Amino acid sequence: MSLLNISLLIQDTTAIDALAESVKGDMGMLWMLISGILVFFMQAGFFLVESGMTDSKNAVNIAMKNFLDIAVGSLAFWFIGYSLMYGADQGGGFFHWGGFTFSQGAADLFFQTVFAATAATIVSGAIAGRTKYTTYAIFSIILTALIYPIAGGWEWNGGWLNTASFMPAEFIDFAGSSIVHSVGGWAALVAAWLVGPRIGKFLDGKPVEMHGHNQMYATLGVFILWLGWFGFNGGSQLAWGGDDSAAASQVVLVTNLAASAGAIAALLFTWIKMGKPNLGMTLNGALAGLVSITAGCGNMGEGGAILAGLIGGILVVLSIGFVEKTLKIDDAVGAISVHGVAGAWGTLVIGLWGVDGDTGIGLFNGGGAAQLGAQAIGVIAYALWAVVTSFIFLYIMKVTVGLRVTEEEEIAGLDISEHGSLAYPGKRQREIE
Amino acid sequence: MSLLNISLLIQDTTAIDALAESVKGDMGMLWMLISGILVFFMQAGFFLVESGMTDSKNAVNIAMKNFLDIAVGSLAFWFIGYSLMYGADQGGGFFHWGGFTFSQGAADLFFQTVFAATAATIVSGAIAGRTKYTTYAIFSIILTALIYPIAGGWEWNGGWLNTASFMPAEFIDFAGSSIVHSVGGWAALVAAWLVGPRIGKFLDGKPVEMHGHNQMYATLGVFILWLGWFGFNGGSQLAWGGDDSAAASQVVLVTNLAASAGAIAALLFTWIKMGKPNLGMTLNGALAGLVSITAGCGNMGEGGAILAGLIGGILVVLSIGFVEKTLKIDDAVGAISVHGVAGAWGTLVIGLWGVDGDTGIGLFNGGGAAQLGAQAIGVIAYALWAVVTSFIFLYIMKVTVGLRVTEEEEIAGLDISEHGSLAYPGKRQREIE
Amino acid sequence: MSLLNISLLIQDTTAIDALAESVKGDMGMLWMLISGILVFFMQAGFFLVESGMTDSKNAVNIAMKNFLDIAVGSLAFWFIGYSLMYGADQGGGFFHWGGFTFSQGAADLFFQTVFAATAATIVSGAIAGRTKYTTYAIFSIILTALIYPIAGGWEWNGGWLNTASFMPAEFIDFAGSSIVHSVGGWAALVAAWLVGPRIGKFLDGKPVEMHGHNQMYATLGVFILWLGWFGFNGGSQLAWGGDDSAAASQVVLVTNLAASAGAIAALLFTWIKMGKPNLGMTLNGALAGLVSITAGCGNMGEGGAILAGLIGGILVVLSIGFVEKTLKIDDAVGAISVHGVAGAWGTLVIGLWGVDGDTGIGLFNGGGAAQLGAQAIGVIAYALWAVVTSFIFLYIMKVTVGLRVTEEEEIAGLDISEHGSLAYPGKRQREIE
Repeated sequence: MSLLNISLLIQDTTAIDALAESVKGDMGMLWMLISGILVFFMQAGFFLVESGMTDSKNAVNIAMKNFLDIAVGSLAFWFIGYSLMYGADQGGGFFHWGGFTFSQGAADLFFQTVFAATAATIVSGAIAGRTKYTTYAIFSIILTALIYPIAGGWEWNGGWLNTASFMPAEFIDFAGSSIVHSVGGWAALVAAWLVGPRIGKFLDGKPVEMHGHNQMYATLGVFILWLGWFGFNGGSQLAWGGDDSAAASQVVLVTNLAASAGAIAALLFTWIKMGKPNLGMTLNGALAGLVSITAGCGNMGEGGAILAGLIGGILVVLSIGFVEKTLKIDDAVGAISVHGVAGAWGTLVIGLWGVDGDTGIGLFNGGGAAQLGAQAIGVIAYALWAVVTSFIFLYIMKVTVGLRVTEEEEIAGLDISEHGSLAYPGKRQREIE
Repeated sequence: MSLLNISLLIQDTTAIDALAESVKGDMGMLWMLISGILVFFMQAGFFLVESGMTDSKNAVNIAMKNFLDIAVGSLAFWFIGYSLMYGADQGGGFFHWGGFTFSQGAADLFFQTVFAATAATIVSGAIAGRTKYTTYAIFSIILTALIYPIAGGWEWNGGWLNTASFMPAEFIDFAGSSIVHSVGGWAALVAAWLVGPRIGKFLDGKPVEMHGHNQMYATLGVFILWLGWFGFNGGSQLAWGGDDSAAASQVVLVTNLAASAGAIAALLFTWIKMGKPNLGMTLNGALAGLVSITAGCGNMGEGGAILAGLIGGILVVLSIGFVEKTLKIDDAVGAISVHGVAGAWGTLVIGLWGVDGDTGIGLFNGGGAAQLGAQAIGVIAYALWAVVTSFIFLYIMKVTVGLRVTEEEEIAGLDISEHGSLAYPGKRQREIE
Repeated sequence: MSLLNISLLIQDTTAIDALAESVKGDMGMLWMLISGILVFFMQAGFFLVESGMTDSKNAVNIAMKNFLDIAVGSLAFWFIGYSLMYGADQGGGFFHWGGFTFSQGAADLFFQTVFAATAATIVSGAIAGRTKYTTYAIFSIILTALIYPIAGGWEWNGGWLNTASFMPAEFIDFAGSSIVHSVGGWAALVAAWLVGPRIGKFLDGKPVEMHGHNQMYATLGVFILWLGWFGFNGGSQLAWGGDDSAAASQVVLVTNLAASAGAIAALLFTWIKMGKPNLGMTLNGALAGLVSITAGCGNMGEGGAILAGLIGGILVVLSIGFVEKTLKIDDAVGAISVHGVAGAWGTLVIGLWGVDGDTGIGLFNGGGAAQLGAQAIGVIAYALWAVVTSFIFLYIMKVTVGLRVTEEEEIAGLDISEHGSLAYPGKRQREIE
């Protein structure tokens, strides 16, 4: 009789454990869904930053590109991309597949979809003001359906960056400094180079500053991106409950600190360098701070996060100058520097002062060079992948449909030439009809 | 002794069940509250869409109407509306009442309040640019306190659409394609017809395009509405935990897919029809996709949702033309088409390819015509209700306080004539003082 | 044997209690984190309200001040402020300290950080258009790192306002009508007075209305603030689960009702007083309604909240006139009235008709004068603290670095003189380079 009782008790403990597990699952799904909703809103932020930082004659075009990113991106990622990223391994962790419209759970699929749409959006800003809408539409589909998901599976689906025997350590990229941001940033580099600079950007080989039309939009956009990033990084915990609650909260905390540090660094750096604190650079500094902590937000204390963000904020100012003056590439919004360079930096910094719980895994805190090596391999692999695949697809388009509008269309503005309407219609709208 | 033990164990299992239930209640309340907060933010989206799509001389007036909707709406729904919608049945499921300031729970009351405010806002856009502020204020109260709540109780409070013996099946409207959107849309139709077109809208009986003043606002507004809709539809699950977590996540997923499909459909359709992909129509296409999935988001797979959104996106473009060219009604922002027509479509589509769990309930997937019949009855009932009640109240106002400002006031703009200030003050502001 | 069983059962009940507690902790952390994210977004709202309500030549400067508030504020509060506010008592509940980079939990630290940044932002608006950027930067750090946290510890860390023997009752300030808003508001009063009015604000001693440049921004900003306030007040429950779920939901509900009442009150009051319903005052009325319920949102029924908001909405209109016409202080956005005056009112109203559960604690509902006395002590203490400390720091800066830009710089606009760029660049931007 007592044996029976004891067995009942064991069942009962199981019921408690089952409840605990089920509640944890429910809370995790809630956090991922809310995070995904915040990440979705980043599209509005990208739209505002890109349109604010460029000419008003191309603002409708930027709105239309952002709608492509989220709308075509959502459909393409649902149909193909998610399966390529999270399907079963089909070859050494390099390539995955689970079938068309493969799905593992609505909250996860939604969260991953809005991530994919982000990667596409990054390219949009760099090539603003001269790219054909059709060409961008095709490239946006390719990026969301193929380039990004295959790259993502290397790491987030237990791919080769985690499992290959030659890796000195497991590659770490918590929320995608490399996978999302630098893949987007390097694709933007190739695209901006192949498309060529806007008319008037270089005068006798020297870059001319081409002002945006509305810094208020750009500011609001950065606030929205910062907001959305709490979901982008925090939601990448992929769980809530117990240790995961504290961990995801810590991710949000260090994300905010790194963004703050990036903004302050760029603000002070431009103040010293240019004599006045510059808004555009402060905005890019905040974004760079965010990108710089995206890989390491699960492996950084508060001090480490602030330092990562600070350096990211300075790097982005230097890099924007380098891209313009040395590479002579016209990146209309600084996307290559914000997402590519800061993304690489944010990935590498884990190998410098990252931690794993209480254990230092970075070079400067007794962790040795193994993690730094792993991070470097990942940075290079993603850069190569993004550069090579983007080049192939964009080059094919260059020699077929063409990348660029005509000179007349560019001078008139893409809003009129590609979409037949103006951002701020009025008398002029009626003239063009 | 062992009997005692067993009885203790039974109590204990009850304790686990009680905890499970209590946690589910807590999580449900959390999700509803967050969803309600997202739906609240849709007011900002409506404000931006409406002001962006109309003339700058009426932008302050639109802001003031939106404040009425949320502020007066919140008070009126708290005082009367909620009771009329969720009070006890007072007659065949047609009319409910629970007393003034009736309340069942703060999270639910808040969630339902922001829904009510949405219905009022829909009318505002259609009649922009020529309607008296006083008149709109009165109508906004009537809609939030009477027309919408009584209609809502027919379905969401176990009213006649669920229980009447002549219904071929239980009417389904998960988040309000009919109850919120088409009630708002048909009220907008009556209002736009009774108020009459803006001066200059029709020239020799032909519609003249009257451009908005800021497509950037309209774009940001649609992003905010899309964001808020995740709460609008997802929160309508009214619960979280267990099957509800997965169900609410699926609602958010299909909402995003339908919005994407609606945007792409309108983008491609205008591209083919007008030669260029049009931003204004893409924005309306996204909104139509959202409205099209609002009733069926609990009864659609991903493919079905995409198809519903796609058709919604095309319908809205056709309907906007029909309202202008055939009905000769001036709907300043396309509200009749976006909310009324897409709302009816979104309600009917459940009868075509809706599912209930794994069971097809739509005509095209073996479900027979019963559900389609029920949906059609609901669509017609809500249309009749909205048209008749709006007509009565608006007609009374037309012959008493009047619906419309004078010709001089309209030409000067409602901002000056009704509010004495400009959206973009400057020198001109000082002139009018 | 049976004893063993019973002991196991006791353990088991403990396991259920432990699970219940752990889940409650997880849900509380989730709600606080989400609330903190909403409060963060209020920075965007403040930016839009302040820039929209002032001249476009100072809009970049306002953006730059907002970035300071959140970026420097986040770092300063993490490094010093949080410890001063929530560290161990160091002297009679007046002063706390827990060491540099003191931390008790990431979700709480994040939530408190975004609160601190809010207090700083309030000052920014009042002194817009003529204050040196460097000076503002230093004052923003002082406010976030010292003035606000010490004041906060008096109440929220069991400080003297809760424990001192001479207090007639425990002071109540649920979410910071006094601690955040009136501290910010009275600091703004001192700052606006010491900095002096903008050139042209007073003509022969009479105030001249200086219009903002974009009421659309201001409107969007108020919607964002209203949205964020749900987190500001609701998150101040600091918990979720069981009674806390219902309590936090009720907080959100009454917050929305008070904001609505404040907006309607200001709208109607200006309609009666000025002949037309005024947008700027309606916006300030909504904000005043929100501030008026911030202290009492845990101690008000729906009717009490509406009344508190209504009176707040009227008070703000009267106070804005009083500050301008009688005090002859130039508060560019009405911050003194919205945050200082409505903040004091919102704190006092608890002593008039506040409740504690079902018990009346206010003067007008049988609670006696004790609570009103306690509220009055708190209001006066916070006012004195904010006025005296702000005066000391600002006066030191006035006689050292200076508070104000030169007359030429002010006329040219701070955007050019302090930041070398324009909010809406174009031809004019190239002229100034």
